[in-house]
Amino acid sequence: MITLATDFGEPYPAAMKGVVARRTDADVTDIAHELPRQDPRAAAFWLRFVLPEFPPAVHCIVVDPGVGTDRKALVVRAGGHALVGPDNGVLFPPARALADGGDIEVFEVRVKDPASQTFHGRDVFAPVAADCHDVGIDDLHRLPALSPTREYADLAFPAPEVRDDGATAEVLVVDGFGNAVTNLAGTRVEGRDAVTVNGESVPVAPSYAHVGAGERLVTVGSHGQAELAVNRGRGDETFGLGPGDTVEFGW
Amino acid sequence: MITLATDFGEPYPAAMKGVVARRTDADVTDIAHELPRQDPRAAAFWLRFVLPEFPPAVHCIVVDPGVGTDRKALVVRAGGHALVGPDNGVLFPPARALADGGDIEVFEVRVKDPASQTFHGRDVFAPVAADCHDVGIDDLHRLPALSPTREYADLAFPAPEVRDDGATAEVLVVDGFGNAVTNLAGTRVEGRDAVTVNGESVPVAPSYAHVGAGERLVTVGSHGQAELAVNRGRGDETFGLGPGDTVEFGW
Amino acid sequence: MITLATDFGEPYPAAMKGVVARRTDADVTDIAHELPRQDPRAAAFWLRFVLPEFPPAVHCIVVDPGVGTDRKALVVRAGGHALVGPDNGVLFPPARALADGGDIEVFEVRVKDPASQTFHGRDVFAPVAADCHDVGIDDLHRLPALSPTREYADLAFPAPEVRDDGATAEVLVVDGFGNAVTNLAGTRVEGRDAVTVNGESVPVAPSYAHVGAGERLVTVGSHGQAELAVNRGRGDETFGLGPGDTVEFGW
Repeated sequence: MITLATDFGEPYPAAMKGVVARRTDADVTDIAHELPRQDPRAAAFWLRFVLPEFPPAVHCIVVDPGVGTDRKALVVRAGGHALVGPDNGVLFPPARALADGGDIEVFEVRVKDPASQTFHGRDVFAPVAADCHDVGIDDLHRLPALSPTREYADLAFPAPEVRDDGATAEVLVVDGFGNAVTNLAGTRVEGRDAVTVNGESVPVAPSYAHVGAGERLVTVGSHGQAELAVNRGRGDETFGLGPGDTVEFGW
Repeated sequence: MITLATDFGEPYPAAMKGVVARRTDADVTDIAHELPRQDPRAAAFWLRFVLPEFPPAVHCIVVDPGVGTDRKALVVRAGGHALVGPDNGVLFPPARALADGGDIEVFEVRVKDPASQTFHGRDVFAPVAADCHDVGIDDLHRLPALSPTREYADLAFPAPEVRDDGATAEVLVVDGFGNAVTNLAGTRVEGRDAVTVNGESVPVAPSYAHVGAGERLVTVGSHGQAELAVNRGRGDETFGLGPGDTVEFGW
Repeated sequence: MITLATDFGEPYPAAMKGVVARRTDADVTDIAHELPRQDPRAAAFWLRFVLPEFPPAVHCIVVDPGVGTDRKALVVRAGGHALVGPDNGVLFPPARALADGGDIEVFEVRVKDPASQTFHGRDVFAPVAADCHDVGIDDLHRLPALSPTREYADLAFPAPEVRDDGATAEVLVVDGFGNAVTNLAGTRVEGRDAVTVNGESVPVAPSYAHVGAGERLVTVGSHGQAELAVNRGRGDETFGLGPGDTVEFGW
C-alpha cells in the first residue's frame, strides 16, 4: 500500500496517483490533502497521530515550502514502514511514532533533473514511493537512487513549561471541529475537575457530550494531548485561539 | 467493500482506514467526510440517498455528537447491507432505504474499553466494520460482540404540512451547489408551471438550465425532493434559506 | 481503472461510485470533486494537466451546467484512454493532451430516459463509464449505445496577445495555494530576471522559495504556464486577480 498526504488540495494529488498507477499496481490510500498549507510541523503532528494505525506501507508525504531549492529528498525507514518526502523535518515525528523506540534509517534520494521546479510531489516523491513499494520496504538499499545519510533536518514540537500550579502551553493544530489541540500532555489534566485556561475556569471532561451544548471544556483528545473544545461548537472560536497561540493553564 | 461516511474532515478518517487495513483486505470507499457536523439528521438524509446505489457492503457511519457518553454502538442489517454506527438514529433512514420494505435487524455491539473517549470512529466503529466484513453480512450473528436488540434510537425527517393551496415545508439540507433541499416530496410540485415560495412566484422546471443564468427555480432533485435552486447560482443565498428554515409553498 | 472528476462536492460522487461498483469491479480513483463549479473551461484546464499522468483508463468527467437540457452525452477515445462526459467541450482539451497529436474519436451516447433530470453523473455518465471499462477501450464500437459523431461542442482556451514588449494575458484558474495560473506560456517569461505585471515589476524565479516569504514572483508552474504567486502566501489575493481577469505583462 502507498499512502498520500499533502497540503496541495485538488487536483494536484491526482497527478501523483497517475504517476503511481503508471509505475506500480500498489493500492493507493488518501490520508489527507488539505493538511495546513506549507506547515511541516502541523503535518508532522497529524501524521504522527494517523500513520501508526496503518499496517506497514510506503507513505508519501509532501508538505514542501522549499520545493525547487536544493533541500534534499529523503526516504526514512521506521517500524517496517517507509516515509518519502522532503528534507524539512516533516517525516521524523511520524517516523519516531512508527519506530516506537526502534531504529530509524534515513536515505537521501539522488534526484535527476525533475520535470518541474514546483511540483516534486509528481516529479520526485511519487516515483520514489512507487520504487520503494516495488523493491520492498526491507530492500530499500537495493534502490540505486538511495544512499544512507546522517545529515538531515529534524523537527520537534515545542515543549510546554510545566509548573506546580499550571503550565504555559501552545496550540499546535486546530481540527475540523474547531478543537484546539495543545502541546500539553493529556496526563497533566486528566483526573482534575477543572483547570483555568488563560485565567478562566473550564471543566475537564472525558468527552465533549459531558458538558452542555455550547459549553467549553478541556478534554484529552484521541492523540493524547489536552485540547480546548466546545460541545457541539468550535473551541478555537470560543477560546479565541489558533495554531501558535500561547495557552496558560492553571490548576 | 467497506464504505466510510463521517463528519470528521481530515485527517481523522485516515486513522479509520489504517485500522481497517490492519484488520482486513476489504476495499475501502470514501462516501463523504464533510457531512454536516454533528447533525445525524442531515447525514441520514444524504446516506438514504447515496447508499442504495451500492451493491451489498458494510457501511461505517460516524456522525456522533454523543461520543464518550453511554450511547450504544449498533450494527443494522438491511437489504443485504450492514450499517455500523452510533445509536442516535443516523443508521435507520438509510437502512429503511436499503431494506426497501424488507426486514431490518438491529444488533447492539458489546464494546470493551475503547482506547479513547473521543474517537470511537477509530476505536469502536472501524474495528466492528472490519469484523462484519470478515465474518460476512449474512453471518453477523456469529460475531460474539453482537447481540440482537429492540431498544435503539430512531430518527425521522419532519413531515411537511400539505394543504389544498400549498404546504408548509422545511429545508433539510443544502448541497454544495447551494440547492436547498426541502422535505416536500417532488410529486407535490411536478407538473406545475410555478409555485409561490414564501410569497414570491417561482417557476417549476425539470432542471436548472431550463431557466436563465442567475434565475430562481423550484425543481425536483435526484433525491426526489422539491428543492430551491438558482441556475448557475446558489439557491440558499438567493432565497435566504438554510437547514431548518421554514418554506411556505403556495399553488 | 475508472477515474471520477466532478464539480459536485460531497456526497454526490459517492452515488456514482455505488453505480460503478454495482456494475463492474474496476478500481475507482478520485481525481477531483471540487473542480470550479459549473466551469467546463477550468475543469478542462486541470484535467488536461492531470490525466496524461495516468495509464490508459476510463475518465468520467462531469462538469455539466446543461444537465437536463438536450445537450448530448459523449465518449471520446484518445491515446488509449476513454473520456465520458457531457457535450460542452470539457472533454476535448484533456483528450488532445492524451492523444498527443494522434487521433481522437468521438461517440455520441444514445441515452434512454434517465432516472433524473438533474443528476446525469449517476444516471448517465457513471453507467456508461462502467460499460466502457467492461467492453474495453479498444472495443468501444461494440457498445450498442455508442455511435460515431462529428457534431459536438469543442472548447478552447483564450490565446494571449503577445507583443515585442509584453503580452495581454488572462488568469485561467487559481489553485489551492492561491497561485493564479495564466494563459501565457511559461516559455515567454523563462530566462527573464523580472517582468512587469499590470505595471509593477515582479521577479521571475524558478520556484516559490527563491524569493522571501510573503514576496511576489512570476514562475512557470508544473502545467507549463506562467503563474502569479507569493512565496508562502496567496498570489490571487496579493495581485488582486482571479479567473477571467486580464493580466498585462511587460518586458
